[in-house]
Amino acid sequence: MTSTESAILKPDEKHHPGHGPVLAMIDVLAGTNRLVDPGRPQLRISDLAAIRGDGVFETMLARRGVPRKVEAHLSRLAASARMAELDIPARAVWHDTITNALRAHGLCEEALVKLAVSRGVEGGDRVTAWVHVSDCTGHYDTQRTRGIDVLLLDRGYDSGLGIRAPWLLIGAKTLSYAVNMAALRHARSNGADDAIFVSSDGIVLEGPTSTLLLAMHVDDPARRTLVTPSLDSGVLAGTTQAAVYPLARAAGWRAHHAELHVEDLFEADAAWLVSSGRLLAPINRIDGRVLKRRPSLDAELSGWIHQIE
Amino acid sequence: MTSTESAILKPDEKHHPGHGPVLAMIDVLAGTNRLVDPGRPQLRISDLAAIRGDGVFETMLARRGVPRKVEAHLSRLAASARMAELDIPARAVWHDTITNALRAHGLCEEALVKLAVSRGVEGGDRVTAWVHVSDCTGHYDTQRTRGIDVLLLDRGYDSGLGIRAPWLLIGAKTLSYAVNMAALRHARSNGADDAIFVSSDGIVLEGPTSTLLLAMHVDDPARRTLVTPSLDSGVLAGTTQAAVYPLARAAGWRAHHAELHVEDLFEADAAWLVSSGRLLAPINRIDGRVLKRRPSLDAELSGWIHQIE
Repeated sequence: MTSTESAILKPDEKHHPGHGPVLAMIDVLAGTNRLVDPGRPQLRISDLAAIRGDGVFETMLARRGVPRKVEAHLSRLAASARMAELDIPARAVWHDTITNALRAHGLCEEALVKLAVSRGVEGGDRVTAWVHVSDCTGHYDTQRTRGIDVLLLDRGYDSGLGIRAPWLLIGAKTLSYAVNMAALRHARSNGADDAIFVSSDGIVLEGPTSTLLLAMHVDDPARRTLVTPSLDSGVLAGTTQAAVYPLARAAGWRAHHAELHVEDLFEADAAWLVSSGRLLAPINRIDGRVLKRRPSLDAELSGWIHQIE
Repeated sequence: MTSTESAILKPDEKHHPGHGPVLAMIDVLAGTNRLVDPGRPQLRISDLAAIRGDGVFETMLARRGVPRKVEAHLSRLAASARMAELDIPARAVWHDTITNALRAHGLCEEALVKLAVSRGVEGGDRVTAWVHVSDCTGHYDTQRTRGIDVLLLDRGYDSGLGIRAPWLLIGAKTLSYAVNMAALRHARSNGADDAIFVSSDGIVLEGPTSTLLLAMHVDDPARRTLVTPSLDSGVLAGTTQAAVYPLARAAGWRAHHAELHVEDLFEADAAWLVSSGRLLAPINRIDGRVLKRRPSLDAELSGWIHQIE
């Protein structure tokens, strides 16, 4: 437990399992928000979120009511919105709304906090924006501890495309996630738990909802290195990876971005998919082939990830 | 006006401009539908349409209350659903719902009829499905008559990818249309009206919301030919193109699919983007370069398209 969490969770407060979801809709003109019933319809059918997947989103983890990496998520939401040419609410509005929604949700061990902005109702003049909080306590325990099997799936794009073709919204976290969901279904229907996308020119990219991290040279204290795919190869900038790197460096590791190829995955001393909700999932197998695993490294990386505020 | 339309529109019925939109939600268990207020929220925030663009859709045109190409659209909806592994309502349910929605909408000159199915509320056990009708009379007049300027935009995928990578949902009409919308915005912010996607290996594909048709050899009555991009290059199967081809053949034209390259666009005697709502838009310029135009061909193609039932 971090000091922030222990300050928030008073000793006499118990964890209340099964907190119901909470939804706060933002009034984008007034900059205010109000709690509404997430079990009731809140979106019009003509909202461009629903009919075009035309919007951007972020998912954060809140531990015992404290959201993690809020500034990093708000920065990435703003970056996605710029790519999608969306005018989104100001940071202060998001802060207020997140605080309001989390207070209403109450203290559970872990909750997912989803921020979303759509282009609004078709033909209208303002975005639709909301914050949704749902209890996810225990949901990721198995993948975090036992690890995952992964398939490599062709993402179809070459690694230089994001820069050449901004209309493809590569690197923006949009509400058009049908392909990411189809990739996960494809992996699961083929006996795996998750996927790693590979570019058409053979560059390893990311998971459909996660960032890849590799450990290299771990037996040489002077060369222990964390590696993640280069941002300019067309991946989403990982907020967990970005938060872990300074902590790894402080612990004496090197940490950098690189152009990774499939063979690098099998040469690494360990490989993980990291994300804001699941935190870290050690990779056991890729396309059925067993990877190296070092439980001590899992523990070290997990320690850094839990320190993130 | 086709005979079907004149039979439906009695002589004493006037066009009522500004018919409000109509929405029919389908009860997928009962196979029934009910009209609801489209101005009110009808979707939960946790519906996968809204947060993942995870669903499929179709847009048809209804002229004076008569929907066009219903069977073709229902077949394509079913094909998209198969690719997305979605269990959608039966044809009879769609027919009932379309009829109910159009009857409630009343007779306007032209209306868009949108069918959509999402994977439903996250964690739930059934899809969400609806039919939305909105008056579009006059909306496309300028593009139909004056024509459009188009930009060529890289789609990023190579033309063989759809077959190799089913998880990319190439050829499925999904609710994840953020890239299609971004391509249209990119074209418009660069002084054009629309876009044509080109594969990473230089094959001409389709518009973000339309199918490309070219006329070739029109001065030789024995060789007049309509050409559209091959389906196996990763395009959506165009329902308007499919309906036009038999009519063109009946009029003595050849009509086929082909692997098209950019230079073919400039060598064609005419080029159009065709779609269910806009019908046909003659292309005036591509990337600023003027294309051949034949108003007599526009009239001939338009005649076929208006005959479609």
